[in-house]
Amino acid sequence: MSNSVTVHAPATIANIVCGFDILGLALQAPYDIMEVSLKDEPGITLRSSAAYNLPTVPEDNVAGASLLALMEAYGKPVGFDVYIDKQIKPGSGLGSSAASSAGAVVAANHLLGNIFTKEDLVRFAMNGEKVASGVKHADNITPCIYGGVTLIRSIFPLDIVPLSSPPIYVTVVHPQIEVKTSDARQILRKEVQLKDAIKQWGNIAGLVSGLLKNDYGLIGRSLEDVLIEPVRSILIPGFDEVKKQCKEAGALGGGISGSGPSIFMLSEQQSTAATVEGIMKNIYDKLGIDYKTYVTTIGSGGVKIM
Amino acid sequence: MSNSVTVHAPATIANIVCGFDILGLALQAPYDIMEVSLKDEPGITLRSSAAYNLPTVPEDNVAGASLLALMEAYGKPVGFDVYIDKQIKPGSGLGSSAASSAGAVVAANHLLGNIFTKEDLVRFAMNGEKVASGVKHADNITPCIYGGVTLIRSIFPLDIVPLSSPPIYVTVVHPQIEVKTSDARQILRKEVQLKDAIKQWGNIAGLVSGLLKNDYGLIGRSLEDVLIEPVRSILIPGFDEVKKQCKEAGALGGGISGSGPSIFMLSEQQSTAATVEGIMKNIYDKLGIDYKTYVTTIGSGGVKIM
Repeated sequence: MSNSVTVHAPATIANIVCGFDILGLALQAPYDIMEVSLKDEPGITLRSSAAYNLPTVPEDNVAGASLLALMEAYGKPVGFDVYIDKQIKPGSGLGSSAASSAGAVVAANHLLGNIFTKEDLVRFAMNGEKVASGVKHADNITPCIYGGVTLIRSIFPLDIVPLSSPPIYVTVVHPQIEVKTSDARQILRKEVQLKDAIKQWGNIAGLVSGLLKNDYGLIGRSLEDVLIEPVRSILIPGFDEVKKQCKEAGALGGGISGSGPSIFMLSEQQSTAATVEGIMKNIYDKLGIDYKTYVTTIGSGGVKIM
Repeated sequence: MSNSVTVHAPATIANIVCGFDILGLALQAPYDIMEVSLKDEPGITLRSSAAYNLPTVPEDNVAGASLLALMEAYGKPVGFDVYIDKQIKPGSGLGSSAASSAGAVVAANHLLGNIFTKEDLVRFAMNGEKVASGVKHADNITPCIYGGVTLIRSIFPLDIVPLSSPPIYVTVVHPQIEVKTSDARQILRKEVQLKDAIKQWGNIAGLVSGLLKNDYGLIGRSLEDVLIEPVRSILIPGFDEVKKQCKEAGALGGGISGSGPSIFMLSEQQSTAATVEGIMKNIYDKLGIDYKTYVTTIGSGGVKIM
């Protein structure tokens, strides 16, 4: 049993347009790099790269809160030293907190001899999401740990369904503006029209079918959100233009990543994904908003032990 | 080109518990028997078995209204003579009107040399559903024409997705009470809680995944309806007891067929489906309500040309 491990914890896209709170996918890049070591004395020490000021009190840190849940389940005295080299910017809508939470518990589980299941690890890491956003959601945590595309059929009790998918390229733009997950949740209406909900679950069923049947056309037609996107996209300058131009350029479709502000577009071909990146850059250049872009794929396997 | 054809138009189960307005499946039995012939003069004549008083004015008859839509698309003068031997009781919640509508247009299309696609036929037959319930819904029509399990991702524009499924036994009880589709629609709330809608689309995504992945356990866990069933089941005496006892006996799950009053239960094993039938009979015997039961399977292929 090694005393130290390095893991790569990938960025994730929650919701995948129509699957609010139930669907998510893991990206090949970007990812956080985390080094986790067993300590001689019980407890958690947290350090992070200079770029971000992450909390160092375990209870206030998403990785720390997740590890505390794991340590409680472990039941014996154990201590971890955690170093986070954060590559996924907090507040990007790309599952930054989920990466820290998931990375920490996958690494700790490795150091303890893989005594916990992936589902256990999701449960532990959900405590990190509670710290980050006040809600124990799992739609970033789950793809981060399982990789690929994942469905959370139910959160209480937890019921995770890994979904296969055909090869898909993902282009992401992260406009450097701030949208807090808690704000993005608060602007949602608590009641929705039944007729809109029916459209939404038609699209969710279509998207799941499209992924499992390798039907790119169906995936594209199903990437429609009549409930959440119309409200949340108001917070993201350039959103409508990005979506319109990228779809005209051949992208299957896309939308807000998680609660934003990042926007993602899915493409069947790598060349389309590259064209889409150019469109995104052009739009935010014109708007005078700083941004970062990624051209990547859906990542398999989740958090990687290096 | 033959001048006359006999078809079997199967009963169907709309919604499949959680998939309100988007999912449906065809049954192996019961089915209506329809004889459709080309007439020398344009127009439609309608006759039916003595058991039911079906309207004979084409515009008021579901098969007639569906044929009128087909004839309009055909564009040339043509006439049909239709005889319906109705086996699926109107108002059973087993897609009786859809069977007449679908059977008529499939038969007519056969007589005209199969010039229309299945999707065209669904569109024509939706006019029959309009006559029957005031709404152009397609969740019975589509499985009746396609067979198996079908998803309607979107109704306008029409987007039909046939779904594969593992072998599944279906037990149906039709308590002989009246529930009108229009009434069953009216008691539904027009607004729903977002949190309930999320549960519902988690289950829909789970059911679609379970069917496509041949995962009986997942199918069973997904057969949960938090929105429609709690309201509609009030109209069906014995519902809660049927569901509880059948699940205890090993059924995967089940619920209201369409808008009721029929109740269906899905089982992995034929022996379970038979046990379930016994439970249903026992409950309605005790309640003193007349009933009819069926033990069958999901039917492939839809309306059959005999």
